[in-house]
Amino acid sequence: MFKQITILGPGLLGASLLQAAKNRRLCQRTAAWSRRAETRAKCEGQPWCDAVFADAGKAVAKADLVIVCTPVDTIVPLLGEIAAKLKPGTLVTDVGSTKSLICRLGRAALPKKVGFVGSHPMAGSEKGGLEHANPELFHGRACFVTPLVDTPAKDVDRITRFWKALGMEVSTTTPESHDEIVAHLSHLPHLLASAFCAYLGTRDPQWLHFAGPGLRDTTRVAAGDPALWKAIALENREEILRALDGLQKELDHLRIALHNAQPFALQHILERGRDYRVRLRPLGDKS
Amino acid sequence: MFKQITILGPGLLGASLLQAAKNRRLCQRTAAWSRRAETRAKCEGQPWCDAVFADAGKAVAKADLVIVCTPVDTIVPLLGEIAAKLKPGTLVTDVGSTKSLICRLGRAALPKKVGFVGSHPMAGSEKGGLEHANPELFHGRACFVTPLVDTPAKDVDRITRFWKALGMEVSTTTPESHDEIVAHLSHLPHLLASAFCAYLGTRDPQWLHFAGPGLRDTTRVAAGDPALWKAIALENREEILRALDGLQKELDHLRIALHNAQPFALQHILERGRDYRVRLRPLGDKS
Repeated sequence: MFKQITILGPGLLGASLLQAAKNRRLCQRTAAWSRRAETRAKCEGQPWCDAVFADAGKAVAKADLVIVCTPVDTIVPLLGEIAAKLKPGTLVTDVGSTKSLICRLGRAALPKKVGFVGSHPMAGSEKGGLEHANPELFHGRACFVTPLVDTPAKDVDRITRFWKALGMEVSTTTPESHDEIVAHLSHLPHLLASAFCAYLGTRDPQWLHFAGPGLRDTTRVAAGDPALWKAIALENREEILRALDGLQKELDHLRIALHNAQPFALQHILERGRDYRVRLRPLGDKS
Repeated sequence: MFKQITILGPGLLGASLLQAAKNRRLCQRTAAWSRRAETRAKCEGQPWCDAVFADAGKAVAKADLVIVCTPVDTIVPLLGEIAAKLKPGTLVTDVGSTKSLICRLGRAALPKKVGFVGSHPMAGSEKGGLEHANPELFHGRACFVTPLVDTPAKDVDRITRFWKALGMEVSTTTPESHDEIVAHLSHLPHLLASAFCAYLGTRDPQWLHFAGPGLRDTTRVAAGDPALWKAIALENREEILRALDGLQKELDHLRIALHNAQPFALQHILERGRDYRVRLRPLGDKS
């Protein structure tokens, strides 16, 4: 499918991508770049990594697919850094959790002879780092591909085929629609779990002993990297604020129902919540 | 440990209790009562159930341990119904998720010759019903035992030994302290998940396709039985409202940090949330 895939930022997603691409024979060669010597050292000698670079420009020079897997606030500057080194016809994508800014500024940062299509594979874990990499991380998960109106169809097709080859269910949306959806399904639930845990942290530490599986599951995502999530929250703050406004109305209903001890109003919220939750399709795996 | 254990309300918890008691030989005989003929029919012939009763008074007449496993708003009326049929020295407990009202009104409903100590084993599942019963449901989980100030120590010891024999980690607290703790660790997280799902249910149904493991985990509990949770929320509404007030302050901080695009304030919330979450002890199992 590709001669050389280069990953910029081989963390959990980047390293898992190279492992998956190797396993499924989607490329002849793999390469990785990291700004950190420690990460480069971890990549050296790995069976899924044929070459490791300390210079991003050199890492992408021979690639025909470049996948940027760095934190969302570093993607556009990095594209600017590699722009002059990319060969004509190379396809560039990223796996950032926000898309509107990245797709517009990323496209503008790259030369016309290079293809750029934003992606967001909905896979990951609160346990980051290439130590936790897993070639099956993407299997059965949703992936957004977010072209701009003037993105050539052949580039969209090519990146779509790549994600499908990893077992992902690909949906094509505008970057703006993507950001609205993930604000609701990913960013706000994460921030909500963080805010809830931040509040529990102000209460009696002894209570920790009584936490059951319900609390563990509802707050699992709050263990994620604060710096990564701060960057995501800032990039998508307008959509997250709109989602938070919608949730706040439900919380206000909940407060009134509890305050006035209204069984029907309480049951209505619980039933609407249950009706939505039972419609979530089962996932083939956990993580 | 006991001659006869009688369960009133053999649902997920009640049936699991009888299975666990049988497996661990904690009693010679088991008995179950349900108001519903359908549930009684399901108990008939089960290896963990020696006798099934349609009359609660008859079910408890020969018991030396009675465990009430019905919804929280039915426990006190049911204790009133069986009060005259209990033999002297019988120990009565319940597994309700709220304790202040149940312990006070429950004690008052029973004769002095009968022991009563409230319990709350923190085990369960959003999948209710005796079909999902599992004798290992309690193993490694926390259990509250909530005596009143004048509850005899021997009754507290006896029920504590019972829960420990099922593998539970027992903590003794006042009913009021219990209700404050579970409002924070169980009831509010549940209502929050329900409110969040209720809100998502007002948005584009197509979004359901994009839900990942993060959303699934954070909202899992919202699939629970609305009628059961409505009763719990009403019984513990004052403590839940206090917890909701505390959470609301964090959500207000979050809104301001997003609105003003304040990276340090956002990171602070995320870090405090992460610091709390990573301190939750690992559970031996999931569910």
